[in-house]
Amino acid sequence: MNELICTVDLVLLTLKDDGLKVALLKRDHDPFKGVLSLPGGYIHADEDADARDAALRVLRVKTGIESPYLEQLATFSGSARDPRGWSISVAYYALVSADVIERASHPDVQLLSVDRPLNLPFDHRQIVETAVARLRSISQYSSLPCHLLGETFTLPQLQRVYETLMGEALNKVSFRRKIFEMGMLEAIAGKFGASGAHRPAQLYRLKPELRERLTLLQRGL
Amino acid sequence: MNELICTVDLVLLTLKDDGLKVALLKRDHDPFKGVLSLPGGYIHADEDADARDAALRVLRVKTGIESPYLEQLATFSGSARDPRGWSISVAYYALVSADVIERASHPDVQLLSVDRPLNLPFDHRQIVETAVARLRSISQYSSLPCHLLGETFTLPQLQRVYETLMGEALNKVSFRRKIFEMGMLEAIAGKFGASGAHRPAQLYRLKPELRERLTLLQRGL
Repeated sequence: MNELICTVDLVLLTLKDDGLKVALLKRDHDPFKGVLSLPGGYIHADEDADARDAALRVLRVKTGIESPYLEQLATFSGSARDPRGWSISVAYYALVSADVIERASHPDVQLLSVDRPLNLPFDHRQIVETAVARLRSISQYSSLPCHLLGETFTLPQLQRVYETLMGEALNKVSFRRKIFEMGMLEAIAGKFGASGAHRPAQLYRLKPELRERLTLLQRGL
Repeated sequence: MNELICTVDLVLLTLKDDGLKVALLKRDHDPFKGVLSLPGGYIHADEDADARDAALRVLRVKTGIESPYLEQLATFSGSARDPRGWSISVAYYALVSADVIERASHPDVQLLSVDRPLNLPFDHRQIVETAVARLRSISQYSSLPCHLLGETFTLPQLQRVYETLMGEALNKVSFRRKIFEMGMLEAIAGKFGASGAHRPAQLYRLKPELRERLTLLQRGL
């Protein structure tokens, strides 16, 4: 039997001050004790049903965040990535709104912008870059960006999130047509949000049955 | 230290008789001895640099196929998927032309259609279905289907492969425009292939620098 180090790593992403941020923690033990890195930990065969379960446990214990939207990103492995030995890390990315991180108010979590190259231990910089690229490329075809907003939002807020992720301005009319084509939103009867100088805007939320899975567009936004 | 079973599994896909096929092998040991399953095996920390390296070794040893186009698919894990214990399997998919499988002429490889549900041990049916869904969805945005053709091909042959994977007829003019937009092909000077009743068609091949990575379209086919 091969004895490999089996871990999970979490790329927890959020939008704050109109920019995409990743949550980092100072490591509390060697290697790289005290250095900012992705939340991660060993898989516990005796308590985790699978790697996804391990990722949810690690996120809960290390950041106080429960049941976010979670997707498997990729697995990073080999003899070179961890000084302790041959390791396999199943990486997941989680999307939450900034107020979920604030409510968890974990004292050790730091949010850093992904727009500058990050100096991180192990291959964590590559893991973050893979997650950001995945998020940006899936965004134009899916409901994924909704998970970066709070439970309710207006269409202008939603469009701004898509534009931030895709890095381009979107036409309002065709954006709304495609969003409704995905059938992922429901209007909240009688609820309106602030919308700058304009009249109050209708509030929407993601349909409950779509909170755990993605809706995809056949053609991108 | 947790002691988990760490393996790789290979979804080797090819096109034959105008249908997508997966390569399966009879297992030579328990559990499920004698049952058709995906080629797979333990990661060897002492000889594999990483999981991808392990996948290439397993494919070479078990099917005789060297250096195909290989992509990581996803990692399947947990206490329930393998009767031997808590296991992690990093699954890869490999695309080759049918003549590569024929040339390797491994006596144990069987090609089964993915269009019918497959009765496979472990969670191999789920792994195959994940690979086929990934291939079909990436096909419309990328150079991926080229790897199912031989080294040289005509544009009508290439279009037929895309149509088979996407399950729909494509407009010839816009297909060719998008293919050339990707800039992934080079014409082979003076080489022409048979093209049914029509005049001989120009032969193309994938540019050498693109054989190891995908070219993507901003908008799908």
